[in-house]
Amino acid sequence: MSSTTPAHASAPAHGSVAAKSASAMAQAIADGTSTPSTLLEEHLAIIAQREPQVHAWIHLDRDGARARARALDAAPAAGPLHGIPFGIKDNIDTCDMPTGYGSAIHAGFRPARDASCVAAMRLAGANPLGKTVSTEFAHRAPGATRNPHDPAHTPGGSSSGSAAAVACGMVPIAFGSQTTGSVIRPAAYCGVVGFKPTYGQFNPSGMLANTPSFDTLGVMARAVEDIALVRRALLDGSLPAFAPAALAGVRVGVCRTPFWDRASADAQALLEDAAVALARSGVRLSDFDGGGAFDGLEHANLVVSGYEFARTLVHERLYAYERLSAVLREGRMADGLRETHAGYVAALQRLERARALLDQAFTAVDFVLTLPAPGAAPEGLASTGSAAFNMPWTTLHTPAVTLPIARDAHGLPLGVQLVAQRYRDGPLLDIAHTVLARLRR
Amino acid sequence: MSSTTPAHASAPAHGSVAAKSASAMAQAIADGTSTPSTLLEEHLAIIAQREPQVHAWIHLDRDGARARARALDAAPAAGPLHGIPFGIKDNIDTCDMPTGYGSAIHAGFRPARDASCVAAMRLAGANPLGKTVSTEFAHRAPGATRNPHDPAHTPGGSSSGSAAAVACGMVPIAFGSQTTGSVIRPAAYCGVVGFKPTYGQFNPSGMLANTPSFDTLGVMARAVEDIALVRRALLDGSLPAFAPAALAGVRVGVCRTPFWDRASADAQALLEDAAVALARSGVRLSDFDGGGAFDGLEHANLVVSGYEFARTLVHERLYAYERLSAVLREGRMADGLRETHAGYVAALQRLERARALLDQAFTAVDFVLTLPAPGAAPEGLASTGSAAFNMPWTTLHTPAVTLPIARDAHGLPLGVQLVAQRYRDGPLLDIAHTVLARLRR
Repeated sequence: MSSTTPAHASAPAHGSVAAKSASAMAQAIADGTSTPSTLLEEHLAIIAQREPQVHAWIHLDRDGARARARALDAAPAAGPLHGIPFGIKDNIDTCDMPTGYGSAIHAGFRPARDASCVAAMRLAGANPLGKTVSTEFAHRAPGATRNPHDPAHTPGGSSSGSAAAVACGMVPIAFGSQTTGSVIRPAAYCGVVGFKPTYGQFNPSGMLANTPSFDTLGVMARAVEDIALVRRALLDGSLPAFAPAALAGVRVGVCRTPFWDRASADAQALLEDAAVALARSGVRLSDFDGGGAFDGLEHANLVVSGYEFARTLVHERLYAYERLSAVLREGRMADGLRETHAGYVAALQRLERARALLDQAFTAVDFVLTLPAPGAAPEGLASTGSAAFNMPWTTLHTPAVTLPIARDAHGLPLGVQLVAQRYRDGPLLDIAHTVLARLRR
Repeated sequence: MSSTTPAHASAPAHGSVAAKSASAMAQAIADGTSTPSTLLEEHLAIIAQREPQVHAWIHLDRDGARARARALDAAPAAGPLHGIPFGIKDNIDTCDMPTGYGSAIHAGFRPARDASCVAAMRLAGANPLGKTVSTEFAHRAPGATRNPHDPAHTPGGSSSGSAAAVACGMVPIAFGSQTTGSVIRPAAYCGVVGFKPTYGQFNPSGMLANTPSFDTLGVMARAVEDIALVRRALLDGSLPAFAPAALAGVRVGVCRTPFWDRASADAQALLEDAAVALARSGVRLSDFDGGGAFDGLEHANLVVSGYEFARTLVHERLYAYERLSAVLREGRMADGLRETHAGYVAALQRLERARALLDQAFTAVDFVLTLPAPGAAPEGLASTGSAAFNMPWTTLHTPAVTLPIARDAHGLPLGVQLVAQRYRDGPLLDIAHTVLARLRR
């Protein structure tokens, strides 16, 4: 594990906690050169400075976090994330903080249980700092968060607050969730590492999935090794140790996707340059077209997500329809209520076949290199951007990681996305670390 | 839709509401020969009489149900379940009643949202009467419920209260959930119709799934047409209308399963007799062995359910370990914490292949006939019985329905289970109605 200085946070001063990885922070605590309380105060200072512009948090539990930090100061550093502060998207339950699912309908609700991921982080010694802004029910209607690199630009969504908070050093780790592009896209727009595991690999208990067939819990951090650390805390100690992988001989398929013409010239050039750079490091490049897995995929995705979304939010349809946003009511919910059951089942069956086709296509490549988003974060806050470059991978249940490697002329982050076959999450993180080190500018 | 008098409830007096289907009750309300309030009081009277022995309810909302019934009395009968009382397993969230997940740890918790199924029933005009007893987190440690046919016998679990409540006429419909055999087995032990749809078909939002890869929301009722009515309310009006199917020419595979030697002589004889009776009605019988889908299935089921169970209940491990039952802590949770990640992934991949094998096996038969349980409800309340005859179908995500067709010498219900290929839920209910009419004694 080498990278402790992320290339593209908000240009933090050298030595600032915002320039450190969680792994380095945990090491400092283990070495006795920092303490959980010191670390927390450093993060609270950044929040005090940046939050008035960024609006990453819907609930900040300063007092609770300080009490927990004091308890951790006094305890032996047993867990691998001892004293590390983290953020939690507001559609993920917490037993000691409100959870509002990004909607005024449920503002202030107090769940009985921590979501599985939150409790697992506490077990590993991490310190939950608060709840980050989610779009409404993790769909499209944006919250207050702004892109920390330019407040006139969207941070992406739906995990808006988590991406922005990690990007400007408010926390080194935050949880998000992805229905279509809700982890990878905001991570890319804000210039952090975002990871969406294979569907189902991170236990979803306590996450409000608006589309149960797609929704996947994800993690954002400033270094790939931090993602691996969280993954081990959420899964188990039997995982092979994180080990950056060599590039020589690795087979990488460059996937321009059926949506290539939606990408900006900047983003297209970045991907082509990244492929060339990886080839120079010994990667064996090929073109990857999904072997038929992408045929009709966008339609099937819309049918399944619409059908399930409308049936997840029956409570809100019944009790609080007028308090839902127009974009939700008249968009995906209305679409989902128009779908027929036969169409829904046909789409589910098509997706099963598409996953088998993609498995077959992955016999020819070890990883796929693609874009995480059509370009840098668009100007404006009304839209969280396009998920076109995320839709195939979420729909097909593969793991994906986005890596921040450059900035555009405006100073906004650009990145690449790496994808692996389902269940190859560990090897994906191992190669992603090396790819990031090789490509970042 | 013909059957309105179930054969095997608790021998209710003719004309009693406990002898009626929900469909007949809805018709009576539509005809003006009953009202939601009248219907509710009839059910409350049965509860007053039977609950002291049966203990089906963890929370009964008499006042709320009466207020809702009065509102429904005054409203036009718009929904297909207008005024029909129903019960809700205690691991399914309700916004106006406590939800304790079968554990003292969470007793009295008030969720923010109705589970999707609860809100959908309200939208259809149904009247939630209360929360039914669940085993602890829908696992093994039993609640207070007793079998209404003999209080010294288990009602089965984990949906114990829902099965018992429907069996003795306290409600015509109740929701349960199935991780392994938690709907079909208690329904069979209590002598009601139990239905577990294809995995994922009923939106799981608001159900606490202890094993997300298997847990499926299910329904119990006293008539197959009532299940179809609920299914339409939960899915959509585009479903083909429920239409009892003819038996002649239907291909039925008799599946004795790898666990045939665990079945009682009574149950074995019942299944063989049922097959003969169906053949006399023109069914084309064959033996069904799953085409390899069952190989290693029990092991894979245990690995996946253990691994996920332990990771669902991290909150409880962290905050309330001592308040978990010994059977949970030292059984499935300990097993799950011992599993390796590699073993878990291998089991998930094996299940995917097994589902494809089962799809292939289903090209030779339209439905499978098997047992819902190894026999009648065992004596004793410490165990909820064996799920061996449910494990294959839940693990492989197929729809299943149990039909009460006889009683043993002791007066306890015995039944058969019908299974269909994934997504053939509608045809399964259509044939189940005819099979029940043909076989019940």
